[in-house]
Amino acid sequence: MRKDDRNLYLSNVAVEEALGLFFQKIRQSNELVKIEYIEAIAALGRVTALPVFARLSSPNYNASAMDGIAVRAEATYGASERNPLQLKKHQDYITVDTGDPIFEPYTAVIMIEDVVEIDEETVEIIQAAAPWQHIRPIGEDIVAKEMILPAKHRIRPMDIGALLSGGITEIAVYRKPTVGIMPTGSEIIEPYETMEIGKIIESNSRIFEGLVIELGGRPKRYRPVPDDYGSLKNQILEAIAENDILIVNAGSSAGSEDYTVKLIRELGEVLVHGIATKPGKPTILGFIQGKPVLGIPGYPVSAYFVFDTFAKPLIHYYLGQPLPVRPSVKAVLSKRTVSSLKHREYIQVKLGQVEGQFIATPLNRGAGVTMSLVRADGILVIPQNSEGVEAGEAVNIELLKPLEVIERTLVSIGSHDLIMDLIANHMHDREDGYDLSSAHVGSLGGIMAIKRGEAHLAPIHLLDESTGEYNVSFVKRYLPGGKMSLIKGVKRIQGFIVQKGNPKNIKDFTDLQRADIQFVNRQRGAGTRILTDYELSKRNIEPESISGYDREMTTHMAVAAAVASGTAHVGVGVLSAAQALDLDFIPIGEEAYDFVTYSKYLNTPGVRTFIQVLQSKALQEELAVLGGYKFEDTGKVIEIL
Amino acid sequence: MRKDDRNLYLSNVAVEEALGLFFQKIRQSNELVKIEYIEAIAALGRVTALPVFARLSSPNYNASAMDGIAVRAEATYGASERNPLQLKKHQDYITVDTGDPIFEPYTAVIMIEDVVEIDEETVEIIQAAAPWQHIRPIGEDIVAKEMILPAKHRIRPMDIGALLSGGITEIAVYRKPTVGIMPTGSEIIEPYETMEIGKIIESNSRIFEGLVIELGGRPKRYRPVPDDYGSLKNQILEAIAENDILIVNAGSSAGSEDYTVKLIRELGEVLVHGIATKPGKPTILGFIQGKPVLGIPGYPVSAYFVFDTFAKPLIHYYLGQPLPVRPSVKAVLSKRTVSSLKHREYIQVKLGQVEGQFIATPLNRGAGVTMSLVRADGILVIPQNSEGVEAGEAVNIELLKPLEVIERTLVSIGSHDLIMDLIANHMHDREDGYDLSSAHVGSLGGIMAIKRGEAHLAPIHLLDESTGEYNVSFVKRYLPGGKMSLIKGVKRIQGFIVQKGNPKNIKDFTDLQRADIQFVNRQRGAGTRILTDYELSKRNIEPESISGYDREMTTHMAVAAAVASGTAHVGVGVLSAAQALDLDFIPIGEEAYDFVTYSKYLNTPGVRTFIQVLQSKALQEELAVLGGYKFEDTGKVIEIL
Repeated sequence: MRKDDRNLYLSNVAVEEALGLFFQKIRQSNELVKIEYIEAIAALGRVTALPVFARLSSPNYNASAMDGIAVRAEATYGASERNPLQLKKHQDYITVDTGDPIFEPYTAVIMIEDVVEIDEETVEIIQAAAPWQHIRPIGEDIVAKEMILPAKHRIRPMDIGALLSGGITEIAVYRKPTVGIMPTGSEIIEPYETMEIGKIIESNSRIFEGLVIELGGRPKRYRPVPDDYGSLKNQILEAIAENDILIVNAGSSAGSEDYTVKLIRELGEVLVHGIATKPGKPTILGFIQGKPVLGIPGYPVSAYFVFDTFAKPLIHYYLGQPLPVRPSVKAVLSKRTVSSLKHREYIQVKLGQVEGQFIATPLNRGAGVTMSLVRADGILVIPQNSEGVEAGEAVNIELLKPLEVIERTLVSIGSHDLIMDLIANHMHDREDGYDLSSAHVGSLGGIMAIKRGEAHLAPIHLLDESTGEYNVSFVKRYLPGGKMSLIKGVKRIQGFIVQKGNPKNIKDFTDLQRADIQFVNRQRGAGTRILTDYELSKRNIEPESISGYDREMTTHMAVAAAVASGTAHVGVGVLSAAQALDLDFIPIGEEAYDFVTYSKYLNTPGVRTFIQVLQSKALQEELAVLGGYKFEDTGKVIEIL
Repeated sequence: MRKDDRNLYLSNVAVEEALGLFFQKIRQSNELVKIEYIEAIAALGRVTALPVFARLSSPNYNASAMDGIAVRAEATYGASERNPLQLKKHQDYITVDTGDPIFEPYTAVIMIEDVVEIDEETVEIIQAAAPWQHIRPIGEDIVAKEMILPAKHRIRPMDIGALLSGGITEIAVYRKPTVGIMPTGSEIIEPYETMEIGKIIESNSRIFEGLVIELGGRPKRYRPVPDDYGSLKNQILEAIAENDILIVNAGSSAGSEDYTVKLIRELGEVLVHGIATKPGKPTILGFIQGKPVLGIPGYPVSAYFVFDTFAKPLIHYYLGQPLPVRPSVKAVLSKRTVSSLKHREYIQVKLGQVEGQFIATPLNRGAGVTMSLVRADGILVIPQNSEGVEAGEAVNIELLKPLEVIERTLVSIGSHDLIMDLIANHMHDREDGYDLSSAHVGSLGGIMAIKRGEAHLAPIHLLDESTGEYNVSFVKRYLPGGKMSLIKGVKRIQGFIVQKGNPKNIKDFTDLQRADIQFVNRQRGAGTRILTDYELSKRNIEPESISGYDREMTTHMAVAAAVASGTAHVGVGVLSAAQALDLDFIPIGEEAYDFVTYSKYLNTPGVRTFIQVLQSKALQEELAVLGGYKFEDTGKVIEIL
């Protein structure tokens, strides 16, 4: 490859250095941050550019604080239960409602509950009034010229109330920065376009749009621009003219179609190309016509973190806000997590609160996995020059969800089944909504997670080859001590997932040895893998004789997807996965898919809710539609002694 | 008063009971909560009404994860540094970019960095490729038919990305409930109308608007309706027809103009009138034409808490969201706070973190003080049947601001001066923005707050009558032990604040005894009060001889406001307060307004920032405009031994 064509030489600039270079340049320009005047009633979420001082006092007169009568305080002295005092209307008192002005000669208000009506013109009181009682003095709330809000204050609903009460109808705020969002790449299509092989639905720009709105900016998204020098150049020039900040998405890696860095250099200046983070390395920070331009890589997870690292503080800067700090929580890392010395790594984690302690479990680190952004509860940042974190180490996790939500999350780690999605939905759908977080590491992985205290429950389907019985013996062996319970789940049918019409005519495990058959396997420790290995050994079939035995997938759906895509002809999995992708299914047998938990968790609200959903008619009806499931003792709890 | 006219008999229903009655009725109607279908790209902040399952897998084909070359894995076996392998274009490999589809016969990708170009048609590799390396298998991110989002999920930017990647362009969400907001009252005016005595600027509806938007509803605000039976009835009927929920503001107390409860009863049903909370008692919960109606009292603080207690869960219900839980923090209460056994009390507090512990200081409990809503950091809820909380007790404070903001707040408790507003603004305006929270309890109150550990610093101006010196001797007496420092502030001029033109011709303290003079005083412990008492005792003037000596205000501005409103002729205060309200000022003398702090705080970022602002040119220029201040050793630190 010609190196100059492919921009191979990305530098490896540390985040702090890159931010420093970028913001130094931004601060040098005084014209980037702009102020505008807006109506106070439309100011929700905006940020004051100047302090706001009250124009009027509130109340603006001495006002009755009660419904009652206004009196001269000194005219009531001496009144008591023994010596009630009668007052005459218009002579000694007037009737007032809350908010009515109190004028001379009246100096106190007696509330209506303390007044006895004698006749239309006469009332009686049995207690003297203290001067100024129940009168809101002028300026009790706000005194004219006092500061209502400082500069750089993000306006909340109550602030608008105070502004109006202080006689303010217009305020100076930071203008919302407009952020141009320019997706590029000949392979990307709009969501409503027809999907073809080699095409990717453009979605990053929509994530950016949402983030810009949430941060208080104004997004302007452009239609995807193909990898063509002329089109890109024209679109960049148009977008720079129309926006305060420009984000060019993708086209920032070293690919042959990547014109972004060349164009920014041609039209302006590149400050940084390549930062020392993972994901996010091929980031570009530059300026065109005095406006900041960010080249953000195309993988969704990279895109998210690069936006978060550079675009977010930039938008905050335009809005006069300090660098944001994410709330964080102390947690224990459940898995050894290695990291490169060369990069700062951002690792998405699931958090579970197990017995008062937060356990962080790293998610799939693939930069292309949008769903990890959806599932993540927090971020573990491993600094540059660190080799990683050991299992059991205390770590600081930056939160992506409110702690209250995480505290209401039941953590399941273990075998995968579509039933977990359905249960998660029903648990969330209740009024006392609970989240169910499911990680798929196979049955044995689930048992180990329970042992390490990472999870509340583990779905397992483990065949004891000596007894033919499921699950119980594994719990006794790996989690001894009698503190465990098994929540009975469902019986499900396992079988061969094959292409529609079974073109390879697969009938039995012996077919897997055929030269024309490409198999796809599950990972070690998965119940389905144990079943597969059991069936193979029964037939004395050597794994080496099966092409694709080493290709391991972590879920039934991933196996089905491999078959559907034609990269494999057969895999072992459940009926529901085959049906979901419109594949054929050859049953092998029935197995018990149950849930192991500590007996002490059985009475926690999360596990109780889980069992209720498991036994619900709604869930059983949904599973009947999917097919391949049987209900026997579902939800029954068996204590493992 | 005729009792039936004034709806005197409010009941006293506990909050849980009121919520129970209200929601029981709401749940009985299945038609209140509605679903609509919207575009996924416009779904930010909306709530899924149904679970969303992927339509397409992502990627939808086996895709190269790298820029590089696609090869048959088995054709690379044996390649090593010692034994480099040459590959021919189109025969052994093809060039691929990230995202390109990988078709048969290719089964692996080698990244460009690991490929040496020999010529246009030949490359060399020194390592074998493992099967499927650097290939993103179909469904790596999302597998078709998998659940992307459960029902009742509030959509975030990344969720939109996942929906689009899964081929979803439209989703079912809960329709935003429209909330009619109807301000009532003949005394209220719109912000742009001319202020007159007896008029109040309508602001609650704007607070409600903001809260409804923040909660995900759609507010529809109506123009204020006068207290007139016919107008109110017509407006209620119109608003009920146009909205899902109706809020009628004010008109829910026992005032003679309060038609609200009668109209709700006439047009529908009143479930609750009067709840056992303070503030918020005269709340109405009812139904008209099957839609919920809330009668919310008029005082801003009451209005806020009633909205929070009843309207907020209602909007959440329409959006399928569980009852919200505010984050909270453990704190120590700084002041004894009594509460009625009859009511649940909501008490707004300021929070300060002093040496790692949060200290909660109750704010003014006036229901009419909008500014307390602006200033509050949290809420202390004192349950019904509790007599209150003692100083020093541990309490749970529900947070109104993020904890990170509260942690960056410097807490000042003590004497009041306009300089505190200006310093607060400058501290907030910096890039490393700090909040300055100021409570005004007088100089001695400030010293006591420091002693109790409630504050970081206390502004004081205390004259030692025996030496004529300011502040130092008080610190030595009340905070002995040599751990304190005094940060020198400003010299400021105290004097008589009198009406414009000094119509009562006040020249000296002896004038205060005149029968035609109404005085307004400061509270005990205020430096200005000590100065006043010192000057009076020097002249042997008895306090009893001064009319209004007992009327105590807690700030200079409140004293000025009393003079400006004509309820007093004279008070003692600073020039800036007189000037702010366009009053005249007769100087008495100059005093030292300094700040006492623990020496150990001097190097904390908050106090350092405070001193920097105090010494800044910008602040000095602003004070020069106000007048009445001198700078001598400002910002200098004196250790008190």
